Amino acid sequence: MESPEQFIKHASWSPAEKKAARRAFDEALGRHLSATIAEAKRRMAKVVEPADLWELETYLTESRKTIDRVYRYRYSDLLQVFSILLRDGWLKEADLIGLQPEKIAEVKNGAEAFRRIFGDTGETSGRS
Amino acid sequence: MESPEQFIKHASWSPAEKKAARRAFDEALGRHLSATIAEAKRRMAKVVEPADLWELETYLTESRKTIDRVYRYRYSDLLQVFSILLRDGWLKEADLIGLQPEKIAEVKNGAEAFRRIFGDTGETSGRS
Repeated sequence: MESPEQFIKHASWSPAEKKAARRAFDEALGRHLSATIAEAKRRMAKVVEPADLWELETYLTESRKTIDRVYRYRYSDLLQVFSILLRDGWLKEADLIGLQPEKIAEVKNGAEAFRRIFGDTGETSGRS
Repeated sequence: MESPEQFIKHASWSPAEKKAARRAFDEALGRHLSATIAEAKRRMAKVVEPADLWELETYLTESRKTIDRVYRYRYSDLLQVFSILLRDGWLKEADLIGLQPEKIAEVKNGAEAFRRIFGDTGETSGRS
């Protein structure tokens, strides 16, 4: 039996799955970017002092770096990326429809493991 | 006769002048920071796409670096700093009241020279 690492590394992707994966990826990215814009606008509305402005700058820089780091579309890493995004709430289970059941199970197991090991980032807390 | 460089470097500052200089410096910094906050809010209101948000991030980072670089309160550099701030409109001639006439003349000459050599940055264009 393959280990999860072997499964993730060697999983093959049919054309239909690639399409579903790309759609799921884009959905998560779209949600993440929209939420970042909304949060930045919310923070800007509360800016009074210069220190508030530089805090917002830091928030934007960190958000951009996080998004750049996580959203890399490589099939060899995609199931792990999906696990992180599922844990953080940017990806919904429904977005995974169209992938093989083994891949979906792997993503869900991965999300659970990330949650256990690293905790919930709470990035989307308050979101469904 | 002293060169402007020698004058700037060796100018002595009476306690009353130091007080006036500090007030002028703080006035300029206050105006610059307020204008930066207002401009950031104006830009944020127009953010629609992620690219707009990252442009705003760049604007904030560059503004912070410029402010950090220019606003250094050292008496040996202060007349040059005032010249730059006068050229850029953050400092008003009226702010210089309380300084020796020679220092005021030096700041105004310096502002004119910066304008001639580097042009007007237009940072405060539209402002009085």
